[in-house]
Amino acid sequence: MIESIAILGTGLLGTSAGLALRAAGFRGSIVGWNRGADGAQVALTMGAIDRIATDPLQAAKESQVVVLAVPIYATLDFMEKLSGVLGCDHLVTDVGSTKRKISEAAGRLFNTPEHAAFLPGHPMAGKERSGAALADADLFRGAVWLFTDDPDCKRSVHSMELVKGWREWVVAMGSKTIDLDPVRHDDLVAWVSHLPQFVATALSALLQQEVGDAPELKDVGGRGLREMTRLGASPYSMWRDIAYTNTEAVEAALHALEQRLAHLRENLRTPELRDEFEQANRFRRE
Amino acid sequence: MIESIAILGTGLLGTSAGLALRAAGFRGSIVGWNRGADGAQVALTMGAIDRIATDPLQAAKESQVVVLAVPIYATLDFMEKLSGVLGCDHLVTDVGSTKRKISEAAGRLFNTPEHAAFLPGHPMAGKERSGAALADADLFRGAVWLFTDDPDCKRSVHSMELVKGWREWVVAMGSKTIDLDPVRHDDLVAWVSHLPQFVATALSALLQQEVGDAPELKDVGGRGLREMTRLGASPYSMWRDIAYTNTEAVEAALHALEQRLAHLRENLRTPELRDEFEQANRFRRE
Repeated sequence: MIESIAILGTGLLGTSAGLALRAAGFRGSIVGWNRGADGAQVALTMGAIDRIATDPLQAAKESQVVVLAVPIYATLDFMEKLSGVLGCDHLVTDVGSTKRKISEAAGRLFNTPEHAAFLPGHPMAGKERSGAALADADLFRGAVWLFTDDPDCKRSVHSMELVKGWREWVVAMGSKTIDLDPVRHDDLVAWVSHLPQFVATALSALLQQEVGDAPELKDVGGRGLREMTRLGASPYSMWRDIAYTNTEAVEAALHALEQRLAHLRENLRTPELRDEFEQANRFRRE
Repeated sequence: MIESIAILGTGLLGTSAGLALRAAGFRGSIVGWNRGADGAQVALTMGAIDRIATDPLQAAKESQVVVLAVPIYATLDFMEKLSGVLGCDHLVTDVGSTKRKISEAAGRLFNTPEHAAFLPGHPMAGKERSGAALADADLFRGAVWLFTDDPDCKRSVHSMELVKGWREWVVAMGSKTIDLDPVRHDDLVAWVSHLPQFVATALSALLQQEVGDAPELKDVGGRGLREMTRLGASPYSMWRDIAYTNTEAVEAALHALEQRLAHLRENLRTPELRDEFEQANRFRRE
Protein backbone atom coordinates (compact mmCIF):
# COMPACT_ATOMS: atom_id res chain seq x y z
CA MET A 1 0.00 0.00 0.00
CA ILE A 2 2.88 2.36 0.79
CA GLU A 3 4.63 3.07 -2.50
CA SER A 4 6.78 6.12 -1.86
CA ILE A 5 8.91 7.05 1.12
CA ALA A 6 11.08 10.11 1.81
CA ILE A 7 13.87 9.69 4.34
CA LEU A 8 14.92 13.09 5.63
CA GLY A 9 18.30 12.60 7.25
CA THR A 10 20.40 9.77 5.83
CA GLY A 11 22.61 9.22 8.85
CA LEU A 12 22.99 5.91 10.64
CA LEU A 13 19.28 5.40 11.37
CA GLY A 14 17.86 6.86 8.16
CA THR A 15 20.22 4.93 5.90
CA SER A 16 19.70 1.73 7.91
CA ALA A 17 15.94 2.17 7.52
CA GLY A 18 16.33 2.41 3.75
CA LEU A 19 18.49 -0.71 3.67
CA ALA A 20 16.14 -2.59 6.02
CA LEU A 21 13.08 -1.65 3.96
CA ARG A 22 14.74 -2.97 0.82
CA ALA A 23 15.85 -6.14 2.62
CA ALA A 24 12.27 -6.63 3.83
CA GLY A 25 11.00 -6.43 0.26
CA PHE A 26 9.86 -2.83 -0.11
CA ARG A 27 9.71 -2.14 -3.86
CA GLY A 28 8.40 1.45 -3.91
CA SER A 29 10.51 4.58 -4.29
CA ILE A 30 12.78 5.89 -1.56
CA VAL A 31 14.04 9.43 -1.89
CA GLY A 32 16.67 10.68 0.52
CA TRP A 33 17.76 14.07 1.77
CA ASN A 34 20.63 14.93 4.07
CA ARG A 35 21.95 18.21 5.42
CA GLY A 36 25.46 17.20 4.38
CA ALA A 37 25.76 16.03 0.77
CA ASP A 38 28.30 13.33 1.65
CA GLY A 39 25.83 11.36 3.81
CA ALA A 40 23.25 11.35 1.03
CA GLN A 41 25.81 10.16 -1.50
CA VAL A 42 26.85 7.27 0.77
CA ALA A 43 23.21 6.27 1.28
CA LEU A 44 22.67 6.33 -2.50
CA THR A 45 25.78 4.26 -3.15
CA MET A 46 24.73 1.70 -0.54
CA GLY A 47 21.32 1.36 -2.16
CA ALA A 48 19.39 2.74 0.82
CA ILE A 49 17.78 5.43 -1.37
CA ASP A 50 16.98 5.66 -5.10
CA ARG A 51 17.75 9.31 -5.53
CA ILE A 52 18.93 12.36 -3.62
CA ALA A 53 16.49 15.21 -3.07
CA THR A 54 17.76 18.78 -2.94
CA ASP A 55 14.54 20.18 -1.46
CA PRO A 56 13.35 18.14 1.54
CA LEU A 57 9.85 19.70 1.59
CA GLN A 58 9.33 18.97 -2.08
CA ALA A 59 10.52 15.37 -1.54
CA ALA A 60 8.06 15.05 1.36
CA LYS A 61 5.16 16.35 -0.74
CA GLU A 62 5.90 13.76 -3.42
CA SER A 63 5.98 10.85 -0.95
CA GLN A 64 3.25 9.08 1.03
CA VAL A 65 5.44 8.46 4.06
CA VAL A 66 8.07 10.84 5.42
CA VAL A 67 10.61 9.42 7.86
CA LEU A 68 12.34 12.11 9.91
CA ALA A 69 15.73 10.73 10.94
CA VAL A 70 17.43 13.86 12.23
CA PRO A 71 18.19 15.12 15.77
CA ILE A 72 15.19 16.08 17.90
CA TYR A 73 15.21 19.86 17.39
CA ALA A 74 15.65 19.38 13.65
CA THR A 75 12.66 17.00 13.81
CA LEU A 76 10.59 19.66 15.57
CA ASP A 77 11.61 22.22 12.92
CA PHE A 78 10.62 19.87 10.11
CA MET A 79 7.29 19.21 11.82
CA GLU A 80 6.45 22.93 11.75
CA LYS A 81 7.32 23.18 8.07
CA LEU A 82 5.74 19.92 6.94
CA SER A 83 2.47 20.61 8.72
CA GLY A 84 1.76 23.43 6.27
CA VAL A 85 2.62 21.59 3.06
CA LEU A 86 1.31 18.05 3.63
CA GLY A 87 -2.30 16.93 3.63
CA CYS A 88 -4.38 14.01 4.85
CA ASP A 89 -2.84 11.64 2.29
CA HIS A 90 0.54 11.74 4.07
CA LEU A 91 2.10 10.12 7.10
CA VAL A 92 5.09 11.61 8.89
CA THR A 93 6.99 9.51 11.43
CA ASP A 94 10.28 9.95 13.26
CA VAL A 95 13.02 8.10 15.14
CA GLY A 96 13.77 10.60 17.93
CA SER A 97 14.99 9.39 21.31
CA THR A 98 12.68 11.56 23.41
CA LYS A 99 8.98 11.66 22.68
CA ARG A 100 7.18 14.15 24.93
CA LYS A 101 7.95 17.27 22.90
CA ILE A 102 7.51 15.50 19.57
CA SER A 103 4.18 14.00 20.65
CA GLU A 104 3.01 17.44 21.82
CA ALA A 105 3.92 18.92 18.44
CA ALA A 106 2.21 16.03 16.67
CA GLY A 107 -1.04 16.79 18.50
CA ARG A 108 -0.76 20.49 17.71
CA LEU A 109 0.32 20.26 14.04
CA PHE A 110 -0.93 16.91 12.70
CA ASN A 111 -3.44 14.14 13.32
CA THR A 112 -6.69 15.86 12.36
CA PRO A 113 -8.87 14.61 9.46
CA GLU A 114 -7.46 17.46 7.33
CA HIS A 115 -3.82 17.23 8.29
CA ALA A 116 -1.20 14.60 7.68
CA ALA A 117 -0.86 11.85 10.29
CA PHE A 118 2.16 11.91 12.58
CA LEU A 119 3.25 8.69 14.28
CA PRO A 120 5.96 9.35 16.91
CA GLY A 121 8.45 6.47 16.85
CA HIS A 122 11.69 5.44 18.50
CA PRO A 123 13.66 2.37 17.48
CA MET A 124 15.78 1.17 20.43
CA ALA A 125 18.70 0.56 18.11
CA GLY A 126 21.81 2.43 17.14
CA LYS A 127 25.53 2.44 17.38
CA GLU A 128 27.88 4.55 19.40
CA ARG A 129 29.20 6.11 16.21
CA SER A 130 27.04 7.89 13.67
CA GLY A 131 26.94 8.26 9.92
CA ALA A 132 25.58 6.55 6.84
CA ALA A 133 28.75 4.52 6.32
CA LEU A 134 27.94 2.41 9.42
CA ALA A 135 24.36 1.74 8.31
CA ASP A 136 23.16 -1.85 8.51
CA ALA A 137 20.08 -3.56 7.06
CA ASP A 138 19.89 -5.65 10.24
CA LEU A 139 20.14 -2.75 12.68
CA PHE A 140 16.49 -3.06 13.74
CA ARG A 141 16.37 -6.85 13.80
CA GLY A 142 15.42 -8.05 17.28
CA ALA A 143 15.10 -4.48 18.56
CA VAL A 144 12.06 -2.81 20.05
CA TRP A 145 10.51 0.05 18.07
CA LEU A 146 8.53 2.20 20.45
CA PHE A 147 5.53 4.28 19.41
CA THR A 148 3.96 7.01 21.51
CA ASP A 149 0.87 7.59 19.43
CA ASP A 150 -2.26 9.37 20.65
CA PRO A 151 -4.98 6.69 20.61
CA ASP A 152 -7.74 9.35 20.59
CA CYS A 153 -6.65 11.46 17.62
CA LYS A 154 -8.97 11.77 14.62
CA ARG A 155 -7.26 10.99 11.35
CA SER A 156 -8.41 10.64 7.79
CA VAL A 157 -9.11 7.07 6.73
CA HIS A 158 -6.31 7.30 4.19
CA SER A 159 -3.68 8.41 6.71
CA MET A 160 -4.85 5.71 9.16
CA GLU A 161 -4.07 3.18 6.45
CA LEU A 162 -0.58 4.65 6.09
CA VAL A 163 -0.04 4.37 9.85
CA LYS A 164 -1.07 0.73 9.74
CA GLY A 165 1.17 0.16 6.72
CA TRP A 166 4.22 1.76 8.36
CA ARG A 167 3.75 -0.32 11.52
CA GLU A 168 3.77 -3.41 9.30
CA TRP A 169 7.02 -2.35 7.64
CA VAL A 170 8.59 -1.80 11.05
CA VAL A 171 7.71 -5.39 11.95
CA ALA A 172 8.97 -6.54 8.56
CA MET A 173 12.31 -4.84 9.32
CA GLY A 174 12.58 -7.22 12.28
CA SER A 175 11.46 -5.03 15.18
CA LYS A 176 8.92 -5.67 17.89
CA THR A 177 6.62 -2.70 18.38
CA ILE A 178 5.52 -1.46 21.80
CA ASP A 179 3.12 1.41 22.44
CA LEU A 180 3.79 3.73 25.36
CA ASP A 181 2.45 7.00 26.68
CA PRO A 182 5.02 9.70 25.73
CA VAL A 183 5.59 10.90 29.30
CA ARG A 184 6.01 7.34 30.52
CA HIS A 185 8.37 6.76 27.57
CA ASP A 186 10.62 9.66 28.48
CA ASP A 187 10.72 8.67 32.16
CA LEU A 188 11.58 5.06 31.34
CA VAL A 189 14.31 5.84 28.80
CA ALA A 190 15.83 8.36 31.24
CA TRP A 191 16.62 5.33 33.42
CA VAL A 192 17.42 2.59 30.93
CA SER A 193 18.98 4.56 28.07
CA HIS A 194 19.94 8.13 28.96
CA LEU A 195 21.40 7.37 32.41
CA PRO A 196 23.66 4.57 31.06
CA GLN A 197 24.83 6.92 28.28
CA PHE A 198 25.68 9.84 30.56
CA VAL A 199 27.40 7.50 33.02
CA ALA A 200 29.53 6.08 30.22
CA THR A 201 30.35 9.62 29.09
CA ALA A 202 31.34 10.78 32.60
CA LEU A 203 33.33 7.60 33.27
CA SER A 204 35.17 7.81 29.94
CA ALA A 205 35.93 11.51 30.38
CA LEU A 206 37.21 10.90 33.91
CA LEU A 207 39.40 7.98 32.82
CA GLN A 208 40.78 10.03 29.94
CA GLN A 209 41.82 12.68 32.45
CA GLU A 210 43.17 10.32 35.11
CA VAL A 211 44.81 7.47 33.20
CA GLY A 212 44.47 8.46 29.54
CA ASP A 213 48.24 8.63 29.19
CA ALA A 214 49.10 5.47 31.20
CA PRO A 215 51.11 3.27 28.85
CA GLU A 216 49.71 0.04 30.36
CA LEU A 217 46.13 1.23 30.03
CA LYS A 218 45.17 -0.31 26.71
CA ASP A 219 46.54 -3.68 27.81
CA VAL A 220 45.22 -3.78 31.33
CA GLY A 221 41.64 -2.77 30.63
CA GLY A 222 39.66 -5.88 29.78
CA ARG A 223 36.17 -6.56 28.49
CA GLY A 224 34.54 -4.86 31.48
CA LEU A 225 36.30 -1.57 30.82
CA ARG A 226 35.57 -1.75 27.10
CA GLU A 227 31.87 -2.34 27.69
CA MET A 228 31.53 0.30 30.40
CA THR A 229 33.07 2.96 28.14
CA ARG A 230 31.88 1.94 24.65
CA LEU A 231 29.06 4.51 24.77
CA GLY A 232 31.70 7.12 25.58
CA ALA A 233 32.19 7.35 21.80
CA SER A 234 28.63 8.62 21.30
CA PRO A 235 28.34 11.99 19.56
CA TYR A 236 27.42 15.17 21.39
CA SER A 237 25.38 16.31 18.36
CA MET A 238 22.74 13.67 19.09
CA TRP A 239 22.82 13.72 22.89
CA ARG A 240 22.58 17.50 23.22
CA ASP A 241 18.97 17.41 22.02
CA ILE A 242 18.16 14.49 24.31
CA ALA A 243 19.61 16.35 27.29
CA TYR A 244 17.56 19.42 26.36
CA THR A 245 14.26 17.62 25.84
CA ASN A 246 14.37 15.25 28.83
CA THR A 247 16.33 17.38 31.27
CA GLU A 248 14.34 16.87 34.45
CA ALA A 249 14.09 13.10 34.20
CA VAL A 250 17.80 12.79 33.38
CA GLU A 251 18.73 15.14 36.24
CA ALA A 252 16.72 13.02 38.66
CA ALA A 253 18.32 9.79 37.44
CA LEU A 254 21.85 11.22 37.61
CA HIS A 255 21.25 12.62 41.08
CA ALA A 256 19.95 9.27 42.29
CA LEU A 257 23.06 7.54 40.94
CA GLU A 258 25.38 10.07 42.56
CA GLN A 259 23.74 9.29 45.91
CA ARG A 260 23.97 5.58 45.27
CA LEU A 261 27.69 5.83 44.48
CA ALA A 262 28.29 7.92 47.61
CA HIS A 263 26.44 5.31 49.68
CA LEU A 264 28.56 2.54 48.19
CA ARG A 265 31.76 4.55 48.73
CA GLU A 266 30.90 5.11 52.39
CA ASN A 267 30.24 1.40 52.84
CA LEU A 268 33.20 -0.25 51.13
CA ARG A 269 33.99 -1.95 54.45
CA THR A 270 30.52 -2.54 55.87
CA PRO A 271 27.87 -5.24 55.26
CA GLU A 272 25.86 -2.62 53.31
CA LEU A 273 28.13 -3.44 50.38
CA ARG A 274 26.68 -6.94 50.36
CA ASP A 275 23.16 -5.51 50.05
CA GLU A 276 24.21 -3.40 47.07
CA PHE A 277 25.73 -6.41 45.30
CA GLU A 278 22.64 -8.51 46.02
CA GLN A 279 20.31 -5.82 44.70
CA ALA A 280 22.49 -5.52 41.58
CA ASN A 281 22.60 -9.31 41.15
CA ARG A 282 18.79 -9.31 41.26
CA PHE A 283 18.60 -6.81 38.37
CA ARG A 284 20.66 -9.11 36.19
CA ARG A 285 18.80 -12.25 37.19
CA GLU A 286 15.25 -11.07 36.59
CA MET B 1 60.88 -28.19 34.21
CA ILE B 2 57.71 -27.74 36.26
CA GLU B 3 56.27 -31.19 36.76
CA SER B 4 53.74 -30.81 39.58
CA ILE B 5 51.23 -28.07 40.28
CA ALA B 6 48.72 -27.64 43.10
CA ILE B 7 45.73 -25.39 42.41
CA LEU B 8 44.23 -24.25 45.69
CA GLY B 9 40.76 -22.98 44.87
CA THR B 10 39.12 -24.57 41.83
CA GLY B 11 36.66 -21.80 41.08
CA LEU B 12 36.44 -20.01 37.75
CA LEU B 13 40.09 -18.90 37.62
CA GLY B 14 41.67 -21.98 39.21
CA THR B 15 39.77 -24.41 37.04
CA SER B 16 40.39 -22.32 33.91
CA ALA B 17 44.12 -22.33 34.74
CA GLY B 18 44.09 -26.13 34.93
CA LEU B 19 42.28 -26.39 31.60
CA ALA B 20 44.55 -23.79 29.99
CA LEU B 21 47.69 -25.57 31.23
CA ARG B 22 46.49 -28.83 29.72
CA ALA B 23 45.53 -27.11 26.47
CA ALA B 24 49.01 -25.53 26.35
CA GLY B 25 50.60 -28.96 26.66
CA PHE B 26 51.41 -29.27 30.36
CA ARG B 27 51.90 -32.99 31.05
CA GLY B 28 52.81 -32.95 34.75
CA SER B 29 50.47 -33.61 37.65
CA ILE B 30 47.79 -31.11 38.73
CA VAL B 31 46.23 -31.63 42.12
CA GLY B 32 43.25 -29.48 43.11
CA TRP B 33 41.72 -28.40 46.37
CA ASN B 34 38.56 -26.41 46.94
CA ARG B 35 36.78 -25.21 50.05
CA GLY B 36 33.49 -26.62 48.70
CA ALA B 37 33.69 -30.21 47.48
CA ASP B 38 31.35 -29.54 44.53
CA GLY B 39 33.78 -27.15 42.85
CA ALA B 40 36.62 -29.65 43.11
CA GLN B 41 34.47 -32.40 41.64
CA VAL B 42 33.49 -30.21 38.68
CA ALA B 43 37.16 -29.34 38.07
CA LEU B 44 38.06 -33.03 38.16
CA THR B 45 35.25 -33.98 35.80
CA MET B 46 36.28 -31.24 33.36
CA GLY B 47 39.86 -32.50 33.36
CA ALA B 48 41.34 -29.37 34.94
CA ILE B 49 42.88 -31.41 37.76
CA ASP B 50 44.01 -35.04 38.07
CA ARG B 51 42.93 -35.59 41.61
CA ILE B 52 41.28 -33.85 44.55
CA ALA B 53 43.35 -33.10 47.63
CA THR B 54 41.71 -33.14 51.05
CA ASP B 55 44.61 -31.36 52.76
CA PRO B 56 45.71 -28.23 50.86
CA LEU B 57 48.99 -27.84 52.77
CA GLN B 58 49.95 -31.43 52.08
CA ALA B 59 49.08 -30.97 48.40
CA ALA B 60 51.25 -27.85 48.33
CA LYS B 61 54.18 -29.65 49.91
CA GLU B 62 54.00 -32.37 47.26
CA SER B 63 53.96 -29.86 44.34
CA GLN B 64 56.64 -27.61 42.87
CA VAL B 65 54.22 -24.80 42.05
CA VAL B 66 51.25 -23.75 44.16
CA VAL B 67 48.62 -21.56 42.49
CA LEU B 68 46.42 -19.73 44.99
CA ALA B 69 43.11 -19.02 43.27
CA VAL B 70 40.98 -17.97 46.23
CA PRO B 71 39.73 -14.54 47.42
CA ILE B 72 42.39 -12.13 48.67
CA TYR B 73 42.05 -12.70 52.42
CA ALA B 74 42.06 -16.44 51.89
CA THR B 75 45.22 -15.95 49.82
CA LEU B 76 46.83 -14.02 52.69
CA ASP B 77 45.82 -16.79 55.14
CA PHE B 78 47.34 -19.46 52.89
CA MET B 79 50.53 -17.42 52.57
CA GLU B 80 50.98 -17.43 56.36
CA LYS B 81 50.48 -21.20 56.51
CA LEU B 82 52.49 -22.11 53.42
CA SER B 83 55.46 -20.02 54.44
CA GLY B 84 56.14 -22.43 57.30
CA VAL B 85 55.79 -25.68 55.39
CA LEU B 86 57.37 -24.93 51.99
CA GLY B 87 61.08 -24.55 51.25
CA CYS B 88 63.31 -23.11 48.56
CA ASP B 89 62.28 -25.78 46.05
CA HIS B 90 58.76 -24.35 45.80
CA LEU B 91 57.06 -21.47 44.04
CA VAL B 92 53.76 -20.01 45.21
CA THR B 93 51.83 -17.65 42.95
CA ASP B 94 48.35 -16.17 43.07
CA VAL B 95 45.63 -14.55 40.94
CA GLY B 96 44.33 -11.89 43.37
CA SER B 97 42.90 -8.63 42.04
CA THR B 98 44.77 -6.34 44.44
CA LYS B 99 48.49 -6.70 44.91
CA ARG B 100 49.79 -4.31 47.58
CA LYS B 101 48.94 -6.45 50.62
CA ILE B 102 49.88 -9.67 48.89
CA SER B 103 53.22 -8.26 47.73
CA GLU B 104 53.92 -7.02 51.26
CA ALA B 105 53.21 -10.48 52.63
CA ALA B 106 55.37 -12.04 49.93
CA GLY B 107 58.32 -9.89 51.03
CA ARG B 108 57.75 -10.75 54.67
CA LEU B 109 57.09 -14.51 54.33
CA PHE B 110 58.79 -15.68 51.12
CA ASN B 111 61.51 -14.78 48.64
CA THR B 112 64.67 -15.44 50.65
CA PRO B 113 67.23 -18.07 49.63
CA GLU B 114 65.77 -20.38 52.32
CA HIS B 115 62.06 -19.79 51.70
CA ALA B 116 59.80 -20.61 48.82
CA ALA B 117 59.47 -18.02 46.07
CA PHE B 118 56.25 -16.05 45.83
CA LEU B 119 55.33 -14.42 42.52
CA PRO B 120 52.31 -12.10 42.91
CA GLY B 121 50.14 -12.37 39.81
CA HIS B 122 46.86 -11.04 38.46
CA PRO B 123 45.33 -12.22 35.18
CA MET B 124 43.06 -9.49 33.80
CA ALA B 125 40.45 -12.08 32.87
CA GLY B 126 37.30 -13.37 34.42
CA LYS B 127 33.58 -13.51 34.05
CA GLU B 128 30.83 -11.75 35.92
CA ARG B 129 29.71 -15.10 37.33
CA SER B 130 31.93 -17.42 39.33
CA GLY B 131 32.35 -21.16 39.68
CA ALA B 132 34.22 -24.06 38.10
CA ALA B 133 31.34 -24.86 35.76
CA LEU B 134 32.02 -21.66 33.76
CA ALA B 135 35.74 -22.40 33.44
CA ASP B 136 37.26 -22.04 30.00
CA ALA B 137 40.63 -23.16 28.62
CA ASP B 138 40.68 -19.94 26.55
CA LEU B 139 39.92 -17.56 29.43
CA PHE B 140 43.46 -16.16 29.49
CA ARG B 141 43.94 -16.03 25.74
CA GLY B 142 44.64 -12.47 24.64
CA ALA B 143 44.48 -11.21 28.23
CA VAL B 144 47.16 -9.44 30.21
CA TRP B 145 48.62 -11.31 33.20
CA LEU B 146 50.13 -8.76 35.55
CA PHE B 147 53.00 -9.51 37.92
CA THR B 148 54.07 -7.29 40.80
CA ASP B 149 57.28 -9.05 41.68
CA ASP B 150 60.07 -7.55 43.78
CA PRO B 151 63.05 -7.28 41.39
CA ASP B 152 65.50 -7.05 44.31
CA CYS B 153 64.50 -10.14 46.30
CA LYS B 154 67.10 -12.89 46.82
CA ARG B 155 65.78 -16.31 45.86
CA SER B 156 67.32 -19.72 45.61
CA VAL B 157 68.50 -20.67 42.14
CA HIS B 158 65.95 -23.47 42.05
CA SER B 159 62.96 -21.27 42.91
CA MET B 160 64.16 -18.68 40.37
CA GLU B 161 63.92 -21.42 37.75
CA LEU B 162 60.37 -22.14 38.88
CA VAL B 163 59.46 -18.45 38.56
CA LYS B 164 60.86 -18.42 35.04
CA GLY B 165 59.00 -21.63 34.24
CA TRP B 166 55.66 -20.32 35.52
CA ARG B 167 56.02 -17.12 33.50
CA GLU B 168 56.55 -19.27 30.42
CA TRP B 169 53.39 -21.28 31.14
CA VAL B 170 51.42 -18.05 31.53
CA VAL B 171 52.57 -17.01 28.06
CA ALA B 172 51.77 -20.50 26.77
CA MET B 173 48.23 -20.11 28.13
CA GLY B 174 47.87 -17.16 25.73
CA SER B 175 48.47 -14.21 28.05
CA LYS B 176 50.77 -11.23 27.66
CA THR B 177 52.70 -10.56 30.85
CA ILE B 178 53.32 -7.06 32.20
CA ASP B 179 55.34 -6.22 35.32
CA LEU B 180 54.17 -3.40 37.56
CA ASP B 181 55.01 -2.00 40.94
CA PRO B 182 52.31 -3.25 43.38
CA VAL B 183 51.24 0.23 44.52
CA ARG B 184 51.08 1.45 40.92
CA HIS B 185 49.09 -1.72 40.10
CA ASP B 186 46.48 -1.08 42.77
CA ASP B 187 46.10 2.57 41.79
CA LEU B 188 45.70 1.72 38.11
CA VAL B 189 43.18 -1.09 38.61
CA ALA B 190 41.17 1.15 40.97
CA TRP B 191 40.48 3.27 37.88
CA VAL B 192 40.21 0.74 35.07
CA SER B 193 38.76 -2.28 36.86
CA HIS B 194 37.38 -1.52 40.32
CA LEU B 195 35.66 1.76 39.42
CA PRO B 196 33.83 0.23 36.41
CA GLN B 197 32.73 -2.68 38.62
CA PHE B 198 31.36 -0.55 41.44
CA VAL B 199 29.64 1.76 38.93
CA ALA B 200 27.95 -1.23 37.32
CA THR B 201 26.89 -2.48 40.75
CA ALA B 202 25.45 0.89 41.81
CA LEU B 203 23.73 1.41 38.45
CA SER B 204 22.22 -2.10 38.46
CA ALA B 205 21.05 -1.79 42.08
CA LEU B 206 19.49 1.61 41.33
CA LEU B 207 17.73 0.34 38.20
CA GLN B 208 16.45 -2.70 40.10
CA GLN B 209 14.89 -0.34 42.63
CA GLU B 210 13.53 2.21 40.14
CA VAL B 211 12.38 0.18 37.14
CA GLY B 212 12.98 -3.45 38.16
CA ASP B 213 9.26 -4.16 37.92
CA ALA B 214 8.52 -2.20 34.71
CA PRO B 215 7.01 -4.72 32.30
CA GLU B 216 8.56 -3.04 29.24
CA LEU B 217 12.02 -3.03 30.78
CA LYS B 218 13.46 -6.21 29.33
CA ASP B 219 12.33 -5.21 25.86
CA VAL B 220 13.31 -1.58 25.89
CA GLY B 221 16.81 -1.92 27.28
CA GLY B 222 19.16 -2.55 24.40
CA ARG B 223 22.81 -3.45 24.06
CA GLY B 224 23.96 -0.35 25.91
CA LEU B 225 21.94 -1.22 29.02
CA ARG B 226 23.08 -4.83 28.90
CA GLU B 227 26.73 -3.87 28.69
CA MET B 228 26.54 -1.18 31.36
CA THR B 229 24.96 -3.60 33.85
CA ARG B 230 26.62 -6.93 32.96
CA LEU B 231 29.13 -6.58 35.79
CA GLY B 232 26.17 -6.08 38.13
CA ALA B 233 26.05 -9.89 38.29
CA SER B 234 29.49 -10.04 39.91
CA PRO B 235 29.60 -11.78 43.31
CA TYR B 236 30.03 -9.90 46.57
CA SER B 237 32.24 -12.72 47.90
CA MET B 238 35.02 -11.71 45.53
CA TRP B 239 34.57 -7.94 45.59
CA ARG B 240 34.40 -7.63 49.36
CA ASP B 241 38.10 -8.44 49.62
CA ILE B 242 38.97 -6.06 46.81
CA ALA B 243 37.03 -3.26 48.53
CA TYR B 244 38.86 -4.02 51.78
CA THR B 245 42.35 -4.19 50.33
CA ASN B 246 42.17 -1.19 47.96
CA THR B 247 39.77 1.02 49.90
CA GLU B 248 41.48 4.39 49.60
CA ALA B 249 42.13 4.21 45.87
CA VAL B 250 38.56 3.02 45.19
CA GLU B 251 37.11 5.75 47.43
CA ALA B 252 39.07 8.38 45.53
CA ALA B 253 37.94 7.04 42.16
CA LEU B 254 34.28 6.83 43.22
CA HIS B 255 34.39 10.32 44.68
CA ALA B 256 35.88 11.69 41.48
CA LEU B 257 33.12 10.06 39.43
CA GLU B 258 30.39 11.43 41.72
CA GLN B 259 31.77 14.91 41.14
CA ARG B 260 31.98 14.32 37.41
CA LEU B 261 28.35 13.14 37.28
CA ALA B 262 27.22 16.16 39.29
CA HIS B 263 29.10 18.44 36.90
CA LEU B 264 27.45 16.78 33.93
CA ARG B 265 24.02 16.97 35.60
CA GLU B 266 24.44 20.70 36.25
CA ASN B 267 25.43 21.26 32.63
CA LEU B 268 22.84 19.28 30.67
CA ARG B 269 21.89 22.52 28.91
CA THR B 270 25.24 24.29 28.67
CA PRO B 271 28.20 23.98 26.27
CA GLU B 272 30.13 22.21 29.07
CA LEU B 273 28.25 19.08 28.02
CA ARG B 274 30.05 19.24 24.69
CA ASP B 275 33.40 19.29 26.47
CA GLU B 276 32.47 16.19 28.45
CA PHE B 277 31.45 14.31 25.31
CA GLU B 278 34.64 15.37 23.53
CA GLN B 279 36.80 14.26 26.45
CA ALA B 280 34.93 10.93 26.52
CA ASN B 281 35.26 10.54 22.74
CA ARG B 282 39.02 11.03 23.13
CA PHE B 283 39.25 8.15 25.63
CA ARG B 284 37.65 5.79 23.13
CA ARG B 285 39.73 7.01 20.20
CA GLU B 286 43.17 6.77 21.77
